[in-house]
Amino acid sequence: MIPTITAFEASPDQGMGLARDMRVRWALEEVGQPYDVRLVSFKAMKQPAHLARHPFGQIPTYEEGDLVLFESGSIIFHIAERHAGLLPSEANARARAITWMFAALNTVEPPIVELEQAPFVEGDKPWLAERIPMLKDRIRVRMDQLSDRLGEAEWLDGAFSAGDLMMVMVLRRLEGDGIVEDYPNLAAYVARGQARPAYKRAFDAQLAVFIAASGD
Amino acid sequence: MIPTITAFEASPDQGMGLARDMRVRWALEEVGQPYDVRLVSFKAMKQPAHLARHPFGQIPTYEEGDLVLFESGSIIFHIAERHAGLLPSEANARARAITWMFAALNTVEPPIVELEQAPFVEGDKPWLAERIPMLKDRIRVRMDQLSDRLGEAEWLDGAFSAGDLMMVMVLRRLEGDGIVEDYPNLAAYVARGQARPAYKRAFDAQLAVFIAASGD
Repeated sequence: MIPTITAFEASPDQGMGLARDMRVRWALEEVGQPYDVRLVSFKAMKQPAHLARHPFGQIPTYEEGDLVLFESGSIIFHIAERHAGLLPSEANARARAITWMFAALNTVEPPIVELEQAPFVEGDKPWLAERIPMLKDRIRVRMDQLSDRLGEAEWLDGAFSAGDLMMVMVLRRLEGDGIVEDYPNLAAYVARGQARPAYKRAFDAQLAVFIAASGD
Repeated sequence: MIPTITAFEASPDQGMGLARDMRVRWALEEVGQPYDVRLVSFKAMKQPAHLARHPFGQIPTYEEGDLVLFESGSIIFHIAERHAGLLPSEANARARAITWMFAALNTVEPPIVELEQAPFVEGDKPWLAERIPMLKDRIRVRMDQLSDRLGEAEWLDGAFSAGDLMMVMVLRRLEGDGIVEDYPNLAAYVARGQARPAYKRAFDAQLAVFIAASGD
């Protein structure tokens, strides 16, 4: 059965592949699972048909027969449980890879989202210029720790896993902020993720949606 | 084998049970798994021995033989996979319960943590008084959506699950903020969680640590 995911009809990142459908596309490409995409507008995301799929009115969602899931972490975990290639088979290594999924989403991503959203939420406020460096410093604390843990390893814990997929995508949200660049091992880690053929296929697929939308 | 978790030697919440070890204690109590606790000071949390367990220098961690995990979401999932009582056995219901764990941690908790931390991070800034209502409004958007989805149901998706455990603990972080109180169904949902015998045993265990510490 071919699953259907949802993605932005017109992604606000202009095809940079930073929206959360990219994570799910990448996971599906890693395991070789074809998928369909339903594009949704910002207006449609807040209407009952989409809220039935995603109570918080966001993308991505994942539909497979009677099953409807939301949250990129949950969707990727679901894919990883059903296909080889995203989680190790050895029990302890598997538990550690899952730990990195949660760490990416609950410890590393939240301060990055704050930095990303500040100009939109507080762009007209006099304090924004003073807050941005504070937000960046908070992220640097996490980058210091993540860089220390990664060291010279290729991936966070043994072979590439769903934990790396999620962490690479979270770190990509810092592109242009001048933070990851200060950590050569983290910058190389992100580049390794982006060099994977499955990543490239997923990136091209989401970019094609943006190009088609902007050609209208 | 009895697992060992870590918890604050002196919790900054003064025994209110808002630190993340409470989530793990509750999960362990739900499944009837005894556990040991290693208390760590704020200073020890940033030193090599603890950073080897938790690269971001936080609590809780979970040790079971050779396995070392961090992130409350990952630890609770590990417990839920190995014991009955926290995830449904039917595959689709299980995937949906896991979805709620991720939703609690990646969609609902981050704006709540921002509100909680603002007075510590920006307590001396002139803008704090104007930002607090903005932070609360952002949380209310999520509470509106969560309240709509919960409706009159007892739990988020069928029987009580690790998703509810996580969501109840995340909502508890809003105690005293005058937000959850505006949603009678959410307030009742949190109260249902707190009324569970396993919750009470976990709460009493973490409170006993605080009382012992404050008696020194």
